[in-house]
Amino acid sequence: MKNHTIFFKNKIYIEDTATIVGPKEHEGPVGKYFDKNIEDDLLGQKSHEKAETKLHISTIKYLLNKTHRKPHEIDLCLSGDLLDEISGANFTMREFDIPFMGLYNACATFGEALIAASCFLDTDNFSRVICSTSSHFSTAERQYRYPLELGNQRTPLAQWTATGVGATMLNNVSGKVIIDCATIGRVVDYGLTDANDMGAAMAPAARETLLAHLEGTGRSPDYYDLILTGDLGEAGHRLLILLMEEKGVKLGSNYCDCGILLFNRMAQDVGQGGSGAACSSTVFNGYVYKKLLSGELNKVLLIPTGALVSKTSSLQGESIPGIAHAVSFKRV
Amino acid sequence: MKNHTIFFKNKIYIEDTATIVGPKEHEGPVGKYFDKNIEDDLLGQKSHEKAETKLHISTIKYLLNKTHRKPHEIDLCLSGDLLDEISGANFTMREFDIPFMGLYNACATFGEALIAASCFLDTDNFSRVICSTSSHFSTAERQYRYPLELGNQRTPLAQWTATGVGATMLNNVSGKVIIDCATIGRVVDYGLTDANDMGAAMAPAARETLLAHLEGTGRSPDYYDLILTGDLGEAGHRLLILLMEEKGVKLGSNYCDCGILLFNRMAQDVGQGGSGAACSSTVFNGYVYKKLLSGELNKVLLIPTGALVSKTSSLQGESIPGIAHAVSFKRV
Repeated sequence: MKNHTIFFKNKIYIEDTATIVGPKEHEGPVGKYFDKNIEDDLLGQKSHEKAETKLHISTIKYLLNKTHRKPHEIDLCLSGDLLDEISGANFTMREFDIPFMGLYNACATFGEALIAASCFLDTDNFSRVICSTSSHFSTAERQYRYPLELGNQRTPLAQWTATGVGATMLNNVSGKVIIDCATIGRVVDYGLTDANDMGAAMAPAARETLLAHLEGTGRSPDYYDLILTGDLGEAGHRLLILLMEEKGVKLGSNYCDCGILLFNRMAQDVGQGGSGAACSSTVFNGYVYKKLLSGELNKVLLIPTGALVSKTSSLQGESIPGIAHAVSFKRV
Repeated sequence: MKNHTIFFKNKIYIEDTATIVGPKEHEGPVGKYFDKNIEDDLLGQKSHEKAETKLHISTIKYLLNKTHRKPHEIDLCLSGDLLDEISGANFTMREFDIPFMGLYNACATFGEALIAASCFLDTDNFSRVICSTSSHFSTAERQYRYPLELGNQRTPLAQWTATGVGATMLNNVSGKVIIDCATIGRVVDYGLTDANDMGAAMAPAARETLLAHLEGTGRSPDYYDLILTGDLGEAGHRLLILLMEEKGVKLGSNYCDCGILLFNRMAQDVGQGGSGAACSSTVFNGYVYKKLLSGELNKVLLIPTGALVSKTSSLQGESIPGIAHAVSFKRV
C-alpha cells in the first residue's frame, strides 16, 4: 500500500446503482438523474427516523429488482447513516436475508463502504456486494443541532443535509465502470469547533487524502475528468482549493463538490450547499454514474468527506475531526 | 462463500494483542490475564467519554510499543465503540498517523473488525491491521439507559457493560495463532423490546450465525475446544443452549460466554454478567489469546454478539435486532 493507496488486482465493477431522494433534492440541478423521488419526506411514518429507514429499505429493494438479483446472490451489505448507532441501517438490514457489516465514518461512510467492498471483492470469497448510505435533513438537524420545531435561524456557513439514499452494487465479473484504486483516509483535526461549519472541519482531511492519492498513484489532478468531494459545500470547496494551492497543487475546473451539485444554492436557500451521508452516495449513484455510462465522463475521483462530530462531544468542548476517503472510477 | 462463511487463502496471524481494563474487570475471574488495569475509571478526565477515549489511545499505544511497531507499519485501524457516532474511536484515531475505518455492529463490532481485517489481509494490499473496540460502564449506562446519578435500580436481566479496551494486531506473515475462517452475521429480530435484557435480544442472532458457521464449515460444536459468545450473559447463554437444542444441535461444556468469564456474577453484583463492545475484545485478547499461546486451547470459535439498539429507536417503540459474527482461531 503506497501512501494508503490500494490498486485492486481484480477488476471491481459497478453492476448497477439505485437512488431515491427527497422533494428538495429532486428539484435541484441534478434532480432528473435520480431513479425515484418522494413527495412527502415523512413517508407516512410516525417519525423522520422511521421514514429514513423506509427510504433505505425501498432503495435496496429497488436495486435488487432493477438488477433481477435475489438476496442470496448478495454476499454482503456495507451500510451506514448518520443516526446514533446507525440505527437506520440496522433496521434496514433487518428486512434482508443478507450478511451485514455496519460502517461509520460520518458523511465519508459511502467512500469507506466502496473501499471495503472493493477489498473484499479482490478476494475469491466475495462476488457481489452492496454499499449504501442514507441521510435525512430532519433526523440530522435534530440529532446534531436543534429540533426543527425550535425554528432556529441557520448560520451563513451551514449546509443542508441531503434527504435520500444511494446504493451501489459491485461485483468482480462484469460492468461498464470499474473502481481501479482507492486511498484510505486518516482522522485529521485542525481544532475547529463550529458544528454549523462542517466544510471547514472536513477540508483539511480532504486535502490530506487527495495529496496521498496523487502521490500514491503518481497522477496529477488533470488525470481525472472530474474530482468530486463529498459535501464540503461552497465555502469548503473554495477552502480546499486554497489548501491545495498551499501545497503547490492547483485544482482546476474539473474539481467540484457533490454538495454544490445537489442543490441550487441561491434559489433553494441551503446555505453552502448539500451535506450528509447521502450527499455523495446520491450524487454519485445518480448523476455521476450515468455520466460515466454515457461516456461524458471517463475518469472520476470521488472523495466522500466526513465530520466526526457527535452532540455529546460538541457539548464537552471537543473539536471536530474530519476524514475523507478517495475512490477512483474508470469507464471501461 | 458458503452460508456466509469465508475461508482465507492467506494465513491470517495474530501478531500480538493488548488489553487495558477497569478496576471491576481486574478483580474478576480472568483479571490477571489483562495487560494493564486502571484504578480510577474517570482517569482524571472531565467526563467518562473522555476517559474511554484516553483508555483506547493508551491501549493502541501499548500495542505498538509491545510489538515495536511504528504507526507507518500499520496499514489500517478498524475500530469502534458504543458511543453515539463511535466518537471514542474517532478521537482515538486522531492521535495516530494510521488510515482508519470506523465500524459499528454494537457489541459485535470486534467480530466485524476481525473479519474485515482478515479479508483485507487476504489481499496483497495489506500486511498489518489493528482491530480494537472499547466500552465503558458509565458512558453506556447514561447513553442507553439512565444517568448513573439517578441511582436507578437494576433489573434482574440487566448486564454490566465492561470498562476496557481490547486490541489485536493481525498480519499475514507470522504468529502463533491464525484466523482460518469466519462467518458474517445477518440482522435477526425476534421482536424483543426490553433494553435491560440484551442477552435475549442477541441469542437468536448468535444461533443463526453459529448454525450457518457449522453448516458452512461442516464442523460440529465438538470441533472447538472453546465456543465463546460475546456478551449474552448467564441468561442469554442458557437461552442459546435451548435455541440450539430446538435445532437439534447440542452445545456442551465447551460453550461459554465472555460476559460470564469477565465477572464473578454473584460476588460482583453484575446481573447476568458482562456486556459491551469491550467484553469480547478484552476477554479474547487477554484470557483466550494467552490460553491459545500456552497450548491449553487449540481451536476457539469466538462469536461477538451485538444488540442494535439506540435510545431514539427504543423511545420510538422499535424492537431490538441482534447481530453476531463468528471467527475461528487455531493454534499453529
